[in-house]
Amino acid sequence: MKKLDLLKAIFVASLEGQQVIKVGLLRTLDVPERELAKALGSLKKESLVEIGGRGVRLTPKGRRKLRVVFIGGTFEVIHAGHLYTIQQAKRLGDVLVVVVARDTTVRKRRNRKPLAPEEERVKVVGAIRQVDAAILGSETNIYDTLERVRPDIVALGYDQSHKEEEIAQEAKSRGIKLSVVRLGSPNPNLKTSKILAQLST
Amino acid sequence: MKKLDLLKAIFVASLEGQQVIKVGLLRTLDVPERELAKALGSLKKESLVEIGGRGVRLTPKGRRKLRVVFIGGTFEVIHAGHLYTIQQAKRLGDVLVVVVARDTTVRKRRNRKPLAPEEERVKVVGAIRQVDAAILGSETNIYDTLERVRPDIVALGYDQSHKEEEIAQEAKSRGIKLSVVRLGSPNPNLKTSKILAQLST
Repeated sequence: MKKLDLLKAIFVASLEGQQVIKVGLLRTLDVPERELAKALGSLKKESLVEIGGRGVRLTPKGRRKLRVVFIGGTFEVIHAGHLYTIQQAKRLGDVLVVVVARDTTVRKRRNRKPLAPEEERVKVVGAIRQVDAAILGSETNIYDTLERVRPDIVALGYDQSHKEEEIAQEAKSRGIKLSVVRLGSPNPNLKTSKILAQLST
Repeated sequence: MKKLDLLKAIFVASLEGQQVIKVGLLRTLDVPERELAKALGSLKKESLVEIGGRGVRLTPKGRRKLRVVFIGGTFEVIHAGHLYTIQQAKRLGDVLVVVVARDTTVRKRRNRKPLAPEEERVKVVGAIRQVDAAILGSETNIYDTLERVRPDIVALGYDQSHKEEEIAQEAKSRGIKLSVVRLGSPNPNLKTSKILAQLST
């Protein structure tokens, strides 16, 4: 087992709010128990994890071994444009966290009910191979989620309206050190709105 | 490395029409070269693979170690209903092959242009974690693809119009031994047509 894979699994499990116990890691990583115990022991020796009771946590030093990338979106349906963004974002780091907009947020922004409820949207996004964790956003403030994840990089889709400088500023004021990256698009027609508009023409 | 994972990787690569060379397997399986060589050697000793030149092939005995599941669909957009079907199908075997309908087939059946071209649809389906191989169907006959894959199980979505008996019969006449399974749906509203219909209400 690679050290990085274990650090990633611990980070992802803690993000999803699970108490990171060894049984969960065994299931995620699909390795024999002895091998996991040995790998955890050597991470502990390097002060990359803390092991207490049945729980495992990354130390700040352990967390710094990972480059965490953060993207967000509505993901009402999944199309090739999403995939392109996800693949580009994944290449920027070791762990890709995708934040899925809440139903209330979609209603506010699009002035209609989302095509699929949030719990379905987050499940579909989580099923994409390159996505390490898909989580629901906050209903009130996008920066709450940023504080929860504390990523190293925020990647913005080419058509997302968020301002790079504003995100960098807000992160800084919360003590989060991150870079904001604007991704490109292979094809501006790969947008949910344009794909769905075909149906009414 | 697990024996089954290596057999699966060889099957999938051969299905995608690649000459299965060791370099490709090293990339797919992400293991050191020595470990791969050792694993291939032991599969050869058990007559599960044939190694000739730089190519590796499953023997009929090797192929019988895998249970291959086959599903098909249009996959214009991906939603939670697709995911449910894919997850259910995956549980039926070791390798899940998903056949994506050609643009010509979609035009014939739905009397309109597909929402996304076939090369995008097959890429998106291939990005779903549980999908081992996503391939484009035949433009003329669904049974050509069945002959190419020679699955052990064909799984039908709850709303697919294909007849179980007809598939079983056609497979038999082509010398393919398989079972046909009808999957359930958690929620009949999880259909592309119903999801998209919300847009015009």
